[in-house]
Amino acid sequence: MTALHPLDATTALTPTGERRASGSTSPHYANMAGPFGGATAATLLRAALEDEACIGDPLALTVNFCAPIADGAFDVSWREVRAGKTTQHWAVELVQNGKVAASASIVCARRRETWTHRPGVMPTVPPAHTVPPLDMQGRGGWLERYNFRFVEGAPAWGEAAPAEPRSARSVLWLDDLPARPLDFLSLAALSDAFFVRIIQVRGTRQPMGTVTLTTYFHASGEVLAANGAAPILGVADAKIFHDNFADQDISLWTADGVLVATGVQVAWFKE
Amino acid sequence: MTALHPLDATTALTPTGERRASGSTSPHYANMAGPFGGATAATLLRAALEDEACIGDPLALTVNFCAPIADGAFDVSWREVRAGKTTQHWAVELVQNGKVAASASIVCARRRETWTHRPGVMPTVPPAHTVPPLDMQGRGGWLERYNFRFVEGAPAWGEAAPAEPRSARSVLWLDDLPARPLDFLSLAALSDAFFVRIIQVRGTRQPMGTVTLTTYFHASGEVLAANGAAPILGVADAKIFHDNFADQDISLWTADGVLVATGVQVAWFKE
Repeated sequence: MTALHPLDATTALTPTGERRASGSTSPHYANMAGPFGGATAATLLRAALEDEACIGDPLALTVNFCAPIADGAFDVSWREVRAGKTTQHWAVELVQNGKVAASASIVCARRRETWTHRPGVMPTVPPAHTVPPLDMQGRGGWLERYNFRFVEGAPAWGEAAPAEPRSARSVLWLDDLPARPLDFLSLAALSDAFFVRIIQVRGTRQPMGTVTLTTYFHASGEVLAANGAAPILGVADAKIFHDNFADQDISLWTADGVLVATGVQVAWFKE
Repeated sequence: MTALHPLDATTALTPTGERRASGSTSPHYANMAGPFGGATAATLLRAALEDEACIGDPLALTVNFCAPIADGAFDVSWREVRAGKTTQHWAVELVQNGKVAASASIVCARRRETWTHRPGVMPTVPPAHTVPPLDMQGRGGWLERYNFRFVEGAPAWGEAAPAEPRSARSVLWLDDLPARPLDFLSLAALSDAFFVRIIQVRGTRQPMGTVTLTTYFHASGEVLAANGAAPILGVADAKIFHDNFADQDISLWTADGVLVATGVQVAWFKE
């Protein structure tokens, strides 16, 4: 028997009733306060994708992080909000101690071949294998679950806070550690695998966390499968840090320049 | 008695029970199939903002357009999903004939003054008063509810489809018609007031519609009120049109360069 990849173990759901299941956080994806948001996003997405009524690949995922998720068990419940010929809408909730700690809306779709146009273009970057990954050994949790190969905007840990804010833009190759073929679960997790922008820009460490995350999926499951475990290029940027909240926008690309996901999030910061 | 502005009339909700109300579409914001999505977004946002338990200004709004909304009456229900010291999460549903036609998640927040940094910069554009609005007389519905003053990427209605796709980027000044002081309701509507990108890029008219819309609010109600009814600069762009779906990202700015909202959406197109 092959051991499950940590992402598959972390997002595993044990059925407990009609569209209800139990899950658990995992030290493999631990973060500062509660689990890595990407793992939570993947868990909630999994509930809908594995429902026998699911009509197709995910198109959009919004996760609201309503309260810190405590280490340990949680319950997940989901319902089909509405289904049509082309799209299907799901609502998912993660509950601990009787209270919703995270909620998600998910749109799945039956996509057919149409006119295709790709005005978005991947930045020109050196190939992943030429960019050394950050040394994350001993940092623990989700930081050890990815190779982070920064082309631009690497975190300046250990340096003094800069006199002027640094650029909010980061460009990096990302792949799962251990290696895992790309699918919608790992792509959902990757969409949150950028260090909170304020760390990069301001150079300070302070209480912070994602409040809401939206990811759009732009490729079929076949395209993701064809990528295998090859690194994905991620681009992250931000426009504003103001009165406790900052934005982030991201895009994720296969090495041959195919856009597989875009996303936005709002992150809270303390002061 | 002063007549209500069309946006206030269209988003009006009549209480029918505990966190339940009835509303109605309006010819003032009619669109190709059902109402203008921005009016629906504003209606669902209004339900949460006018709840007596609402803790503060909206931070994030995701609206899922689950099915076409028929002209006429609908029911709206909402619930507080979770509230903390800083953020509060709402879920809202719009129901017709016993089925959910649109759903929303809304995050409200108590914001305090913090470090502010604004790496996003408004494009340099001519002032609104020097840019003539499109002539929308007789086009009906929501197209007559805004002055659209295009600086870049105006719709090429009536022209033949271009041999090569046009740029997906549009830059335009927008203000309500008749004039209305800016608030979160009108800002939510403005976040959907960009012509679906495929019209601009491809030059064809075909069945299309927004599937999901996420808007982030970056300014306080006081900042919006100080804008009064002055035009807001909107910037819209897209990265991909593929297999029935296209993305859109937008930003909205006051004339003095303050970012008031950012957003993304996925729109369906037929072929």
